[in-house]
Amino acid sequence: MISVVILGSGNVATHLFKAFKKAENININHWYSRRIDAISSYKNDVETIDDLSLINDADVYVLAVSDDAIAGLSSQLPFENKLVLHTSGSVSVYDIDKKHKRGVFYPLQTFSKEAQIDFENVPICIETIDKKSYPTIKSLALAISNVVKKVNSDQRKVLHLAAVFVNNFTNQLYRIGHEITESQGAEFDLLKPLILETAKKVQDLSPFKAQTGPAKRDDKKTIRKHLKLLEDQHHKDIYQLLTNSIQRTHGRKKL
Amino acid sequence: MISVVILGSGNVATHLFKAFKKAENININHWYSRRIDAISSYKNDVETIDDLSLINDADVYVLAVSDDAIAGLSSQLPFENKLVLHTSGSVSVYDIDKKHKRGVFYPLQTFSKEAQIDFENVPICIETIDKKSYPTIKSLALAISNVVKKVNSDQRKVLHLAAVFVNNFTNQLYRIGHEITESQGAEFDLLKPLILETAKKVQDLSPFKAQTGPAKRDDKKTIRKHLKLLEDQHHKDIYQLLTNSIQRTHGRKKL
Ligand SMILES: NC(=O)c1ccc[n+]([C@@H]2O[C@H](COP(=O)([O-])OP(=O)(O)OC[C@H]3O[C@@H](n4cnc5c(N)ncnc54)[C@H](OP(=O)(O)O)[C@@H]3O)[C@@H](O)[C@H]2O)c1
Ligand SMILES: NC(=O)c1ccc[n+]([C@@H]2O[C@H](COP(=O)([O-])OP(=O)(O)OC[C@H]3O[C@@H](n4cnc5c(N)ncnc54)[C@H](OP(=O)(O)O)[C@@H]3O)[C@@H](O)[C@H]2O)c1
Repeated sequence: MISVVILGSGNVATHLFKAFKKAENININHWYSRRIDAISSYKNDVETIDDLSLINDADVYVLAVSDDAIAGLSSQLPFENKLVLHTSGSVSVYDIDKKHKRGVFYPLQTFSKEAQIDFENVPICIETIDKKSYPTIKSLALAISNVVKKVNSDQRKVLHLAAVFVNNFTNQLYRIGHEITESQGAEFDLLKPLILETAKKVQDLSPFKAQTGPAKRDDKKTIRKHLKLLEDQHHKDIYQLLTNSIQRTHGRKKL
Repeated sequence: MISVVILGSGNVATHLFKAFKKAENININHWYSRRIDAISSYKNDVETIDDLSLINDADVYVLAVSDDAIAGLSSQLPFENKLVLHTSGSVSVYDIDKKHKRGVFYPLQTFSKEAQIDFENVPICIETIDKKSYPTIKSLALAISNVVKKVNSDQRKVLHLAAVFVNNFTNQLYRIGHEITESQGAEFDLLKPLILETAKKVQDLSPFKAQTGPAKRDDKKTIRKHLKLLEDQHHKDIYQLLTNSIQRTHGRKKL
């Protein structure tokens, strides 16, 4: 049995709470939030607190709070020499106050409160600078996910950066697809199966092999037609830059 | 019963053949390819031919050939006044020789021979300039898909353009994620659940609402760190332009 305290009440804290709660070998001692109201709907399932001095002894303390709050909150914790983890992709493990045993528990997924997430398939990237704590972190991760990877700080930062490309930037391309269709009398909904299939394709095939379309074929006629059809200069710039990028990748253009 | 002749042996022709074959109220009279070898593995399931003069009478002729071949092949067909459709997102319906009844049967999905596609969920965008042919095209589409939409040429071209953003450009962002991770010692595979979830999220939520991350939060510290971490100037340009785009969309920047 691993005893845990969760700190924070945001997207990650809420999803972690649900996953820990379901896991057989995890006991949640407390759920701390500086605003107790934010977690009051869970007060029948766990002891909710908003006072750090009430936190009792646990094997692991998980700081699922904003990146900027990690350092400060870890210093305020009224104990030392315990295992304290943060859940951030970009914050250094050294941001945690050095009075603790320090580690990272980074779930590589996009969380929002509305969307249900199947934690079993969420890769959890773990790291610690206290070697002896490694088995505890690993057990904690394996209790909720099938994909647990030891990832050092440099690798984690690179993953977080790549995640911005495949998640935030991709989502912005969906947004532009939305803008283009709605502004010109077409239906964005018709693109949804394509969006899903594009993501499914690279689960088994490399993105290199999965590529198709006018840029890869160097189909200048279609590219010209598309640029003409785009009304927004900003959309044109993105079309040009990404067409160029595909052509570099597929040897249509000298680097 | 609708009788059909398929022309072409590429990705779309092959997927259409399989879908038509499975449909109850469709009979495939012939499958034509200029290279009979390309479809010889199906010769027990359908009469394969490579000679246009052998094509017999059918309700519908589907030209699933390269965009550039549609006009020429439609002229070569040794009959007139029959319903001839092409399957392209960007080619005008008027590219089909005017001796025919002309229409479009555009399946809005990405097809490659390896990947299995569930045709039931593929939106089929239909159009005709011969009003009386509309019920036949509609029945043909409904025989293989649950999502059939009347879409005019302008709308179809806009959808095709938007598809380049959400499919080809998105896939290139996956490719860049692959390049960044592999070149810096991290594992691309760890990003796959995130890629899938990003696509799933916008099935119910608008891309606007689904957005998260440093650009939307205007988190300058992380953006700076990311730009420093990127080794390739071309990746930096894409990072900057898409960050900028997200900030326009979410009111962080004046238009
Ligand atoms: N969202 C994701 O998709 C995702 C994925 C992987 C990792 N992460 C990482 O997980 C961590 C949490 O992210 P999130 O998305 O859950 O953030 P979030 O939804 O914005 O929630 C942030 C939480 O931190 C609390 N907080 C902020 N400043 C605090 C302070 N000074 N003292 C105590 N609590 C404070 C907030 O409390 P109030 O409500 O009282 O302000 C809130 O409960 C971050 O490190 C993030 O980088 C996020
Ligand atoms: N792939 C997709 O994801 C997709 C999605 C929606 C719509 N479409 C549209 O569907 C159509 C076919 O695309 P595809 O992906 O199936 O293309 P493809 O895989 O490249 O196949 C093209 C087919 O056209 C044939 N062809 C080319 N020139 C010809 C000619 N002059 N006479 C006779 N046949 C000729 C080719 O025969 P050879 O093998 O002998 O060259 C081949 O069978 C295009 O209009 C495309 O825009 C494609």
